[in-house]
Amino acid sequence: MSEKAKAMDKLDELVELSILYDFYGELLSEHKKRVFEEYVHNDLSLSEIAELNGISRQGVYDLVKRCSKELRDYESKLKLISKFDTVKDKLLQIKELISKPTSSNRDNLQEEITTLADDILKEL
Amino acid sequence: MSEKAKAMDKLDELVELSILYDFYGELLSEHKKRVFEEYVHNDLSLSEIAELNGISRQGVYDLVKRCSKELRDYESKLKLISKFDTVKDKLLQIKELISKPTSSNRDNLQEEITTLADDILKEL
Repeated sequence: MSEKAKAMDKLDELVELSILYDFYGELLSEHKKRVFEEYVHNDLSLSEIAELNGISRQGVYDLVKRCSKELRDYESKLKLISKFDTVKDKLLQIKELISKPTSSNRDNLQEEITTLADDILKEL
Repeated sequence: MSEKAKAMDKLDELVELSILYDFYGELLSEHKKRVFEEYVHNDLSLSEIAELNGISRQGVYDLVKRCSKELRDYESKLKLISKFDTVKDKLLQIKELISKPTSSNRDNLQEEITTLADDILKEL
């Protein structure tokens, strides 16, 4: 794997972890939250985080791995991110429908928006 | 407290626990899930559950208390139920707006529904 591909993979993982943390971060212990934030949000290296917290580089690495697994487990059980994506998509459809210079008549518009609103309620 | 008031309190608590379980039940262990469901959804008594699971009545009582605390802790951290209530309220407002024989004009309707959709997105 090229250096560029490796850097892209790392970036993809950081984005994924950052989203997971937004949804489930509150469920981590205070210690895990601090270290994980330093890694994911403040973009510190494992060595920098190790020095800041008085633990080994390996200790930081293990903690980040454990946090990542914990957050992924929460998503596999509660599926909040997947639900959020669906809800967001349907809300954007509502905004789109209500914003276009009406090609469909008022009755159709009412039916379409009501259906989308009901779909969102079912999703939650 | 009268017997009736006690029964109402018990009912209120069962409804609360049932809602908490709908949102966070997946985060409980399989064993806890089974016992908790028997208590909250199947309305079995502590003694009946104890017999079914080969544990003491006190053991069931403690487990139900621990589960209740665990579920309330999840809500205090993730606030999914509180968010759901807000989102549901705003979706009902959208349905109400789009259903009434338009007193407001199309531009107002668009603005009001767009604002509600954006509010929901911010809430999630």
